[in-house]
Amino acid sequence: MSVTLPGLEQIRDAAARIAPHATITPVLRSAALEDLLGAELHFKCENLQRGGAFKFRGACNAVWSLADDEARHGVVTHSSGNHGNALAMAAATRGIPAHVVVPEGAVRAKVEAIERAGAIMHRCAPTIAAREAKAAQVQQATGAILVHPYADTRVIAGQGTAMLELLQQSAGLDTIIAPVGGGGLLSGCAIAAHGMNPALAVLGAEPAGADDAAQSLARGARIESFVPDTVCDGLRTLIGEPNLEVLREHRVEVITVSDEETIAAMKLLWQNLKLVVEVSSATVLAALLKQRDRFAGCRIGLVLTGGNVDIDRLPW
Amino acid sequence: MSVTLPGLEQIRDAAARIAPHATITPVLRSAALEDLLGAELHFKCENLQRGGAFKFRGACNAVWSLADDEARHGVVTHSSGNHGNALAMAAATRGIPAHVVVPEGAVRAKVEAIERAGAIMHRCAPTIAAREAKAAQVQQATGAILVHPYADTRVIAGQGTAMLELLQQSAGLDTIIAPVGGGGLLSGCAIAAHGMNPALAVLGAEPAGADDAAQSLARGARIESFVPDTVCDGLRTLIGEPNLEVLREHRVEVITVSDEETIAAMKLLWQNLKLVVEVSSATVLAALLKQRDRFAGCRIGLVLTGGNVDIDRLPW
Repeated sequence: MSVTLPGLEQIRDAAARIAPHATITPVLRSAALEDLLGAELHFKCENLQRGGAFKFRGACNAVWSLADDEARHGVVTHSSGNHGNALAMAAATRGIPAHVVVPEGAVRAKVEAIERAGAIMHRCAPTIAAREAKAAQVQQATGAILVHPYADTRVIAGQGTAMLELLQQSAGLDTIIAPVGGGGLLSGCAIAAHGMNPALAVLGAEPAGADDAAQSLARGARIESFVPDTVCDGLRTLIGEPNLEVLREHRVEVITVSDEETIAAMKLLWQNLKLVVEVSSATVLAALLKQRDRFAGCRIGLVLTGGNVDIDRLPW
Repeated sequence: MSVTLPGLEQIRDAAARIAPHATITPVLRSAALEDLLGAELHFKCENLQRGGAFKFRGACNAVWSLADDEARHGVVTHSSGNHGNALAMAAATRGIPAHVVVPEGAVRAKVEAIERAGAIMHRCAPTIAAREAKAAQVQQATGAILVHPYADTRVIAGQGTAMLELLQQSAGLDTIIAPVGGGGLLSGCAIAAHGMNPALAVLGAEPAGADDAAQSLARGARIESFVPDTVCDGLRTLIGEPNLEVLREHRVEVITVSDEETIAAMKLLWQNLKLVVEVSSATVLAALLKQRDRFAGCRIGLVLTGGNVDIDRLPW
């Protein structure tokens, strides 16, 4: 897959393109969590984004980047949840069809949201190969344009707008951290962050049970298959090739955290920020807590990625 | 108890007085909830207020209304949770002691928050008589000024600032609704709302198992004792005399809801707004859902009162 990487300019273009449709999400702080960490914490609340996750940014940028004659056949993607929902919602803003390939076993709340958003649903087995095969099949049958969940220039640029906004909302940050699954968000954030301020420390947070990004960076070569074992349903994907390339170029450090650490951090977020965030989002706070001494006195921007949780099945 | 009722002017003064300490809380909307109701819904997020509840507004206004020689002996109150925490936090902003009388059986998360805020704790039996007796005793022993949770001009004016803000943030509302327990919030909101726009419909939401405000309005006389039976721990109090007077004068209608309706509404709020709100807050959405047809096409401001929940003991 060959993907041209976006620069800050493309991220600014994306911000303008999605502005009529996306929410400028608030940045919240918590005195109790700042006391606990001994650092300033600026939480970018993408759980309050349209569709309940940052994914709408990338999907919306992709949908509105298409020429009219490309767009009319619609868009297609495979997604365990948030990206599929985001693409369906973005397609609806342009009045074009969205085909979403959903693996069996995806979180119920997320699948329901995709259906409500009006997508044409296609089920498949819960493997990356099965998803990609089914998406290719739909693409050929309908002429729909594939919008990959993370290995896509338009998506990376769109996700980067979250960081652009955060840095405009919170002056003087020295560190930023976002979760890493496929890497669409983290790569977009790294490009935006260093475009705005090359001195920023850019960190990723990854579940230890899906630590392919951390391992790929350590080995200098991308791991091409693994069996994820983590409660973080949004982060079970392999990092994309172009996304890994960005992490390497931008010297992004990835901190891995256990599910136990993530669940404890999730509770802290619910209790102190009064926000419903999904478990994947909590990896960022877990990572900071794990290396607390190192971050003392820092001014840190954290991306809370989403809030689409089965509230009847909380992980504690 | 004789209490002078505040007017819009006192609420504006309170807003200026608390501005250095309180949070201007965001107003959030949800397309899914608006579709469900067929109405515009503007949620004033007091769960994101300092201390996790609107109570900080009234407590802060009370603390900063005191003359220096009154203030130095500190303040005292009795509270099942949020007001005690708020008063402790407000007292800390002025560097004066706060005594809080806490009834046995109060929500753990709330009691812990009061302790963390640095209050001097006094336990008592879980009855209104026991609370008031203990508070009077502390008052006599220390010279601390009583800041009643709701039957207090300064508190009513402070709580009213939530409505002042909401009406500044969301133009064109025609209806507003807030929960009613002691009535500090609802009375302050009614004064602020009608001060800004006399044509606004002002509604209260009350648990059927603690419907003394609704009954007192219906009978034309204040009910003086009752045994509350509701999961809404923040709304188990009798409405205060001056608070009831405001509701009468402002022709506030109180809609009662069952705990079942409230818990269903609470889940909807968590799932759609991605906010942790306490069960008492959900009465407002439950009330609107109960009379859905009546509110079709309205532009409604709803006060979400707090987010201090034991997340290990959710009511579903």
